[in-house]
Amino acid sequence: MTSVRAAVLSAPRTIDVVALPVTEVPAAGAWLDVESCGVCGSDWSWYRDRPIPSPFVPGHEMVGRIGEVWGDHGNPGLRVGARVAVEEALPCGSCAVCRSGRHRLCPLSTRYGGTGLDVAPGLWGGFAERVYLAPRSNVHEVPDDLDAELATLFIPVSNGLSWLSSTAALHPGESVLVLGVGQHGLASIAAARRSGAGAVVAVGRAGDEARLAAARELGADVVVDADRMDWTDAVLSVTAGVGVDVTVDTTPAATDSLGRAVSVAAIGGRIVMAGLKSGRPSPVPTDLLVRREISVRGVAARESWAVDSALAWLTREPQAFEAFSSVTVGLDDVERALLALGGEQPGERPVHAVVRCQ
Amino acid sequence: MTSVRAAVLSAPRTIDVVALPVTEVPAAGAWLDVESCGVCGSDWSWYRDRPIPSPFVPGHEMVGRIGEVWGDHGNPGLRVGARVAVEEALPCGSCAVCRSGRHRLCPLSTRYGGTGLDVAPGLWGGFAERVYLAPRSNVHEVPDDLDAELATLFIPVSNGLSWLSSTAALHPGESVLVLGVGQHGLASIAAARRSGAGAVVAVGRAGDEARLAAARELGADVVVDADRMDWTDAVLSVTAGVGVDVTVDTTPAATDSLGRAVSVAAIGGRIVMAGLKSGRPSPVPTDLLVRREISVRGVAARESWAVDSALAWLTREPQAFEAFSSVTVGLDDVERALLALGGEQPGERPVHAVVRCQ
Amino acid sequence: MTSVRAAVLSAPRTIDVVALPVTEVPAAGAWLDVESCGVCGSDWSWYRDRPIPSPFVPGHEMVGRIGEVWGDHGNPGLRVGARVAVEEALPCGSCAVCRSGRHRLCPLSTRYGGTGLDVAPGLWGGFAERVYLAPRSNVHEVPDDLDAELATLFIPVSNGLSWLSSTAALHPGESVLVLGVGQHGLASIAAARRSGAGAVVAVGRAGDEARLAAARELGADVVVDADRMDWTDAVLSVTAGVGVDVTVDTTPAATDSLGRAVSVAAIGGRIVMAGLKSGRPSPVPTDLLVRREISVRGVAARESWAVDSALAWLTREPQAFEAFSSVTVGLDDVERALLALGGEQPGERPVHAVVRCQ
Amino acid sequence: MTSVRAAVLSAPRTIDVVALPVTEVPAAGAWLDVESCGVCGSDWSWYRDRPIPSPFVPGHEMVGRIGEVWGDHGNPGLRVGARVAVEEALPCGSCAVCRSGRHRLCPLSTRYGGTGLDVAPGLWGGFAERVYLAPRSNVHEVPDDLDAELATLFIPVSNGLSWLSSTAALHPGESVLVLGVGQHGLASIAAARRSGAGAVVAVGRAGDEARLAAARELGADVVVDADRMDWTDAVLSVTAGVGVDVTVDTTPAATDSLGRAVSVAAIGGRIVMAGLKSGRPSPVPTDLLVRREISVRGVAARESWAVDSALAWLTREPQAFEAFSSVTVGLDDVERALLALGGEQPGERPVHAVVRCQ
Repeated sequence: MTSVRAAVLSAPRTIDVVALPVTEVPAAGAWLDVESCGVCGSDWSWYRDRPIPSPFVPGHEMVGRIGEVWGDHGNPGLRVGARVAVEEALPCGSCAVCRSGRHRLCPLSTRYGGTGLDVAPGLWGGFAERVYLAPRSNVHEVPDDLDAELATLFIPVSNGLSWLSSTAALHPGESVLVLGVGQHGLASIAAARRSGAGAVVAVGRAGDEARLAAARELGADVVVDADRMDWTDAVLSVTAGVGVDVTVDTTPAATDSLGRAVSVAAIGGRIVMAGLKSGRPSPVPTDLLVRREISVRGVAARESWAVDSALAWLTREPQAFEAFSSVTVGLDDVERALLALGGEQPGERPVHAVVRCQ
Repeated sequence: MTSVRAAVLSAPRTIDVVALPVTEVPAAGAWLDVESCGVCGSDWSWYRDRPIPSPFVPGHEMVGRIGEVWGDHGNPGLRVGARVAVEEALPCGSCAVCRSGRHRLCPLSTRYGGTGLDVAPGLWGGFAERVYLAPRSNVHEVPDDLDAELATLFIPVSNGLSWLSSTAALHPGESVLVLGVGQHGLASIAAARRSGAGAVVAVGRAGDEARLAAARELGADVVVDADRMDWTDAVLSVTAGVGVDVTVDTTPAATDSLGRAVSVAAIGGRIVMAGLKSGRPSPVPTDLLVRREISVRGVAARESWAVDSALAWLTREPQAFEAFSSVTVGLDDVERALLALGGEQPGERPVHAVVRCQ
Repeated sequence: MTSVRAAVLSAPRTIDVVALPVTEVPAAGAWLDVESCGVCGSDWSWYRDRPIPSPFVPGHEMVGRIGEVWGDHGNPGLRVGARVAVEEALPCGSCAVCRSGRHRLCPLSTRYGGTGLDVAPGLWGGFAERVYLAPRSNVHEVPDDLDAELATLFIPVSNGLSWLSSTAALHPGESVLVLGVGQHGLASIAAARRSGAGAVVAVGRAGDEARLAAARELGADVVVDADRMDWTDAVLSVTAGVGVDVTVDTTPAATDSLGRAVSVAAIGGRIVMAGLKSGRPSPVPTDLLVRREISVRGVAARESWAVDSALAWLTREPQAFEAFSSVTVGLDDVERALLALGGEQPGERPVHAVVRCQ
Repeated sequence: MTSVRAAVLSAPRTIDVVALPVTEVPAAGAWLDVESCGVCGSDWSWYRDRPIPSPFVPGHEMVGRIGEVWGDHGNPGLRVGARVAVEEALPCGSCAVCRSGRHRLCPLSTRYGGTGLDVAPGLWGGFAERVYLAPRSNVHEVPDDLDAELATLFIPVSNGLSWLSSTAALHPGESVLVLGVGQHGLASIAAARRSGAGAVVAVGRAGDEARLAAARELGADVVVDADRMDWTDAVLSVTAGVGVDVTVDTTPAATDSLGRAVSVAAIGGRIVMAGLKSGRPSPVPTDLLVRREISVRGVAARESWAVDSALAWLTREPQAFEAFSSVTVGLDDVERALLALGGEQPGERPVHAVVRCQ
């Protein structure tokens, strides 16, 4: 192998599929032959307008088969022929954070789909035929009978499972509010339902009709278009004035959502904050946190068990995920997948987009 | 009201429906007009052969409507016309155990369906037209559109939810082993499924064909007749040798089940012990507890949230409980219900039995 | 008994000790002969400027001996001669919140030291010779050899224990930041030390010299006067740039403290919000919550175990609480105790103030 | 470096200090210059009578300085000059167990002090001048001002902290029972005290006078010689008949201890099983587990945070550990240290024994 075809993002709105020469190869690791790689909202935002310090191959929701393994890697998951999904964080594995079981937060970690061409061997992103897997990669087995495109949903689906079950410690029957109906909002709705939630309220916006319909299909009892009505009223009505037990905020920019979520949280309510707000602070009525003993819990990713749980669920009940309508393209058309996910592709507004890499 | 028809158990195999005079009435409380009362395995064992220190009205899985309320009871749930299910423990409400949220374990508690005629007003059991509700009763609202007979399942169903979700802290996707396919075993299977369990293995015995079929219907992936094969083999096979994450032991007498459950528990496995073993100890291979950091957790009843969760679930998905085949009788035929549940009624082997009390 | 001497707060800055006639007495309950009652910051703020809807007897940090018990109260703690401390919330005991073990948050609760003369028998506050204890009171035994004045610290001390051990789930060795050095701040420092905390940083203000000294005495390693230096620098320096594991914010008005606490929280850090901010919101940099998986947890009071734990600790190590310098007055001088705690009594700036009621 | 002096255990009671040639060296890792290595009870039992499948260098409670680092190890803790303590398990770092934060239980792990000379480079044990540290070693920084011999206590001390704080979730004020007064029993007593325990009862045997005295010195309120009195009586007396909240069983062989511990556990009590019983089962009265909702939790080692916590505590309060009387020998006298710990060295019965390796 002397070169690998890969999509390189070198500047906003500049992504090119090229043959990257493979020169310097680390002493140990594996090559993953990527089957499919999902497009994440963060890929879109990198493409759209984030400053690019150094050209890189994006894409981190990747599923494929290990084609080659070498060196003293010490990782039982790296076996030739294994079909795997890969966690996006590449942690050090040895710091206090990693040792506590939270390697997703390792302060020394690098990320697949976010590491530059200048770090050998350069092939760190899933929008490529091959990706280099470093020894400390966290890979998870993917059953042979799970469709690769569906499998790329393992990231939002595992996040939803981890946030509802671990972070919020949802009990069956508790009420759930999900803010935002993108991949993570929809996955949270599905995870709430799977964990036995009682009433589920989902909130989206005008223009998101397809996603609001998907929310309903995935099991939301009440779906609110926030541009047409006040969702706090809907929550109070559904919960008979008691307030909601668990909220997941996946909205990417709104800084008023948290304060409003606090205002309709039940006594002992838990709010999972999953949406990045471009660095801007949200005003929080802390006296309500105190009087009702509400908690707000930030989440960056998921506990690892949830990845295996997501893959098993996707395999067992593929039909449950039909609402995640998807656009699938070949590697050469990666830009179209990005634009579709971002809503800039006329006539397309999919929930998910996938790049087929072989 | 001068008398109430009630079934009085005065000696083993001696239960009579009589008109009990209502003489001394406490200063505060309520009368519950019982709609239906389920028959619990403990009712059967009282009837069969337990020593009866003092005659009493059995029955504690009771659902009804509050007909009268009086005195300074201070309990917001006691309202005339309210339709309620009643927790069987009547705790003091003020000791350290009650204050910790575990009133089910209150060392000062008395029990509905287990308190003598000699404690005024004598009407403490559900196999009666009316039951006295003391001020500290824990009552839960029952929706009008939930069938009363189905509603009496709130006890096993809430136990299953509490054991899987709270005691075992099940994550979606984890494997579950349920030992025993009586009411509690079946409810644990259903609760495991509702909480998003992965593979579920259920174990019963020859002669329990109907219950083994019910286990399958409720969602067990593998159902083992322990008289025909070694269930530990089944567990290892289903979990690919890794062992099972969560076990619920509901078997009433077997003292070898715990040790065998330990032998097939996964690293970090949790075993919920719910079955009483007639006072006999079980041999436990503690070195396995140590090496795999397995825990064994006794449970006597449930956390209160689970009762509301069970009632909402029974209301929302009544069809999910069809496998709980039930015999229903009038108050006069309470003995037949006991015999049917105990397997001594020729031609009947129901999972559940219910007494209609009006 | 025809009348009881009690301090009645009828308007801001208007508190009078009068003989209250005892007329209507509830059907059940007990009389507590108050030995001592501590003065809480909320008593001071009622006195200073809160609107008084109806005259009442303030004071809720009360310790005394039960002098009389009557009626069908059903509370094993109400026994003549028992020496007890009383939780300030008087919960219903029967709602879903109470049943979950969080009776401190019962939406139907009334409060000692905050209930009007117009609710019979009127004697609901601790600044009095006698207080009425309703059946559902949560009383805790006080050892005979614990000084009554010291015992009144059970409220802040139990709060500190509950917040550090239960809310924050502090592990021995973790670093702790305490914002505010009033009773609750100081109690949190002591509780952190008792729970095995590593480095403890305390933050107060200029003018609080005595309290800053008390913070040091109770075990804070670093004590910062926020008017002289930036406490976030101190936290980063003490934690070698890693950030602090647990923060307790007890400051009563500052709306910038939470955002700054988030900025210096470690990965996985937990922030306990205990200070009321007069209804004003605090801006929170939620992206940091997300990236470091920080949580913010409101607390209104404590879990009940912590009251017993506090009383046992105060008994076992009374000398550990010497830093809680206290002003003690007789019932007639209750106004002086309020002014002293509020810092308006020239020459006095105690951490705590106590009213001796007999 | 062509050879390293090390103690090789080749058969029971056959340990020789030899110069081991260093031939084959792995591609990456580090050399640890061992300062001191503690002797664990398991070292003694290997020496005494366990079958030795292949000669090896024992010793795993090791503290030293890193002398050399090479290859692409990816471990931020492996830095030349760093002074470190090393966790005994060498986990794979990549399996589901490791990813859950429980690398101590990794089914693929090997162990320091238990890996044969035939696994290159052979230097896997702490009774040697140098130990090979593989890339996935979990090393923890040791402060320069902590005495190396004292530092070797990091293993029992961290175990005690983890078992009391994490496994048992001890609240300040709860009662604690510790069975066994070896290193782990004594460390559990100290950890209970540090975590704010209420009454602490310790149980040892006749002949253990020095250790019983150490138990008292470390903070046990009641110390029972089990050969002279029934410790269950002592527990019931100390807890006023309520039973004990948390029990830690460190006894190495007794199979009746667990059942008796269950019999005196409080409602909601937690029993931590830490002692290996030579494969023999313990009879457990499970009906008590059920009726009081008691749990039994096996522990094999500790959560990693506890190692840092232990090292910080040993540094901050070295005098707190004086009760851990220790015998210290040079590397040539390793056999004497083993015999002393095992109680076979006339006139010596230390709690701990340490080998100075340079």
